[in-house]
Amino acid sequence: MDAPPVTTRGRPRVAEPGEGIGLDELALATRNHGLPLEALRYDVTPPGLHYVLTHYDIPAVDPASWRLTVTGAVDRPLTLDLDALRARPSVTSRVLLECAGNGRARLEPRPVSQPWLLEAVGSAEWTGTPLAPVLAEAGLSPDAVDVAFTGADHGLERGVEQDYTRGLSLAEALREDALLVWAMNGQPLPPQHGAPLRLVVPGWYGMAHVKWLTRIDVLTEPFTGYQNVTSYRFKVDADDPGEPVTRIRPRALLAPPGWPDFMSRERFLRPGPVLLSGRAWSGRAPLTGVEVSCDGGTTWTAADLAPADPGNPYAWRAWTLPWTARPGSHILVVRAADAEGAQPTEQEWNRQGMANNLVQRVPVTVLD
Amino acid sequence: MDAPPVTTRGRPRVAEPGEGIGLDELALATRNHGLPLEALRYDVTPPGLHYVLTHYDIPAVDPASWRLTVTGAVDRPLTLDLDALRARPSVTSRVLLECAGNGRARLEPRPVSQPWLLEAVGSAEWTGTPLAPVLAEAGLSPDAVDVAFTGADHGLERGVEQDYTRGLSLAEALREDALLVWAMNGQPLPPQHGAPLRLVVPGWYGMAHVKWLTRIDVLTEPFTGYQNVTSYRFKVDADDPGEPVTRIRPRALLAPPGWPDFMSRERFLRPGPVLLSGRAWSGRAPLTGVEVSCDGGTTWTAADLAPADPGNPYAWRAWTLPWTARPGSHILVVRAADAEGAQPTEQEWNRQGMANNLVQRVPVTVLD
Repeated sequence: MDAPPVTTRGRPRVAEPGEGIGLDELALATRNHGLPLEALRYDVTPPGLHYVLTHYDIPAVDPASWRLTVTGAVDRPLTLDLDALRARPSVTSRVLLECAGNGRARLEPRPVSQPWLLEAVGSAEWTGTPLAPVLAEAGLSPDAVDVAFTGADHGLERGVEQDYTRGLSLAEALREDALLVWAMNGQPLPPQHGAPLRLVVPGWYGMAHVKWLTRIDVLTEPFTGYQNVTSYRFKVDADDPGEPVTRIRPRALLAPPGWPDFMSRERFLRPGPVLLSGRAWSGRAPLTGVEVSCDGGTTWTAADLAPADPGNPYAWRAWTLPWTARPGSHILVVRAADAEGAQPTEQEWNRQGMANNLVQRVPVTVLD
Repeated sequence: MDAPPVTTRGRPRVAEPGEGIGLDELALATRNHGLPLEALRYDVTPPGLHYVLTHYDIPAVDPASWRLTVTGAVDRPLTLDLDALRARPSVTSRVLLECAGNGRARLEPRPVSQPWLLEAVGSAEWTGTPLAPVLAEAGLSPDAVDVAFTGADHGLERGVEQDYTRGLSLAEALREDALLVWAMNGQPLPPQHGAPLRLVVPGWYGMAHVKWLTRIDVLTEPFTGYQNVTSYRFKVDADDPGEPVTRIRPRALLAPPGWPDFMSRERFLRPGPVLLSGRAWSGRAPLTGVEVSCDGGTTWTAADLAPADPGNPYAWRAWTLPWTARPGSHILVVRAADAEGAQPTEQEWNRQGMANNLVQRVPVTVLD
């Protein structure tokens, strides 16, 4: 598969110090949406509360005429319709998804792109069929190394016209938990989540879970398409090729207690006992704990973290911590750690604003 | 019912010329979401594509313990659970909803609040029971004038702590098409759309369709609560009491043709015939037509507007217009008119950024 020509047109911009969000960023923010943090309360996130990031337009796909082709370095190219996929063995798996750009708009200086704060996450139950047996049926060439997944969504990105395509290593594509899914939370996939079929690769940031999937290409050379080689890289400057963004870093989020002010989103609550609660996850390694600070990060207390669900190792996990709210201003901070380390308390900046898992800070005012 | 004390704390701000979107506006934009304009293609908008505006937090309501009370100037106060409501005659109605703040972020200068561009709309099928017979069963006092609807959503707005409450005139509350609804598109209401019960008052902007409804108060004096007297007013300056925002002004939207650039959302298409399409609506008077200009507003052509559905007079209506795209840059403009007038081509500014139905302009580049 040839890579599209990559140009530097529209190289991503970094905002000037103090520069407000632009109309381009706003146009993305009003189309795409995050999880309102109070929705951390639902084990499974309903559509409309689960985050959505669409690079181009949501394509109009007719499920009756839609086909998935499996092609490239295979012995027997396949063309599958939705009935053929649904007739295969099916699996339902609860998986945390997070956009690689989550936290971008909290970076200073701010990389100009989809301006997520903290909310580009969601937990859904995905139903589909394992990918590996489909690849096996097509007969993988012994020299296969990567698999490219193409969606029906079409657009332009930094001068490159493309159908959204992401490459995945053969090893990841052959994991038994990588799924081709047609249902979310027991219902047919909604248009914005990839109807009629999307890929789910548990543990990876959202860019890997290709939506509106139409084509699977088995490659004998590493994939060099835009979404792997140009975008989704940890770059410090524009000419740095950067390391690829892969699995989800650890994060804990707090459902902010009390009630908000409409405009400032400042939080208020009454004094007394409060059960602080939220969710935590990591896609790269098992979680080892969640800690909460109620004094802006000076002292930390271990939260009660729900046990991992062996059947759903990539689901988010609930945590709680009782707190006695006393009148005054407080800054609540929460951090998760996994076997590879804890969330940073200082930002780790990169030019595309990828994977910023800086700890969440929630200022609250406890009334007299 | 006593009005809460209205203070001027946090009087809404108007942005300085050229001032970017603030983090406060962004925090609202990432929580709430609009309809990506390509979703104008669906007659009925799925949850997650239908716009949502939540003033405070989405409340956690247990449907089993939830009750609706009907109280105030009635002979027989009622307490109804969900089963009692569902046992009543049910009606399904397709209704266009639009946020009163739609178009706010396109105003210059920009009122600082939820920064909608054009996308705060949606079309859903709402199932519920007519409100008027519930009020009749409670026995309206002969001196009733208004009805106040209170939701479970709690927060602070310009210094006023409140459960979201909107008043409606008795005449509007007694309309046979005003509904207490528990289902959206044939499914139980999603949390963000008001589960377990919301009000639907066809033709009115979104603020009237109170979500998470818990209480209906019949009043013998005009309602003077925050959401009617302070907010949702057409004000030119901060001390102007302003006229109330009521029914939806006419608007047509075009599903932008071609494909977008990810960041700029600029549109590109290939030359040749294109069927321009979109939707149009008005909540205040019957639509009389939709016109399209493909030259930035110099010349206009009548679009083919689908007939009104007599069973769903407040549904949106599809429109189409064939266009031959020739290479170059073009500005597509669309405007609807109803029996009271057409959409404005120059902005009509007001301080809260309410009901800005300025025509949509879509620049497109047709490739060679």
